[in-house]
Amino acid sequence: MTRGAQRLLRAAGRASLTEVPLPSGRRADLMALGADGEIWIVEIKSSVEDFQADKKWSDYRAHCDKLFFAVDLTMPQERLPADAGLIVADAFGGAILRDAPLHRLAGATRRSLLLRFARIGADRLHLATDPDAGAALPCG
Amino acid sequence: MTRGAQRLLRAAGRASLTEVPLPSGRRADLMALGADGEIWIVEIKSSVEDFQADKKWSDYRAHCDKLFFAVDLTMPQERLPADAGLIVADAFGGAILRDAPLHRLAGATRRSLLLRFARIGADRLHLATDPDAGAALPCG
Repeated sequence: MTRGAQRLLRAAGRASLTEVPLPSGRRADLMALGADGEIWIVEIKSSVEDFQADKKWSDYRAHCDKLFFAVDLTMPQERLPADAGLIVADAFGGAILRDAPLHRLAGATRRSLLLRFARIGADRLHLATDPDAGAALPCG
Repeated sequence: MTRGAQRLLRAAGRASLTEVPLPSGRRADLMALGADGEIWIVEIKSSVEDFQADKKWSDYRAHCDKLFFAVDLTMPQERLPADAGLIVADAFGGAILRDAPLHRLAGATRRSLLLRFARIGADRLHLATDPDAGAALPCG
């Protein structure tokens, strides 16, 4: 489902990274960056239980301009919060069923997240192409 | 030599990307991003001829806080400009022989380069992990 959601983001012109550590230590399943500089977080929920166990929304929301939940077609959508966006995805692609409300980040938070995103992406790519280069850089 | 220079940058805590297109259409051999947000460009020069043919320094300088040239040990170093940094590298690593003078980018240019760097890195990583995801995003 992550793969399908990431393809959807890219079709919408947004470059994304998986498993991005937030300043709190939590990880965003997907963080995406548009040409407009907007930062989106997409949390993948594979079951109602998974969803109900997740009490971290405020943490995610504090680190993006738009927050989406991505689910598969079997998820009862009425269980999902109305104040986040809704994506339906499978392994091959997805669709945005409901856009997310915009909660614009403050400038300093945006700059800090953008730097984090940029360093994590470059560093992971470097390690993917040169596995002997060493351990991951601290990008937090 | 690119591999060695990239390992050196990483040892200095800087995440880097290869072949980064600049707004002018030219490509920086390496662009690196520190935790401090400083943007460095490293141009790899494999011969004196290669170096003398390159009249693009001002374009590189306009898109980084610090500009370095990276050469191998056979390069006569007196041919290199004194107002850029100097790196010696081979396939396995490198060393900064001379630090580069700091020409700090204006805020808007820095933000634009950071966004470009972030989107290119994430998009390349995505395509490396999911080759069927499509063509590269426009990240310029």
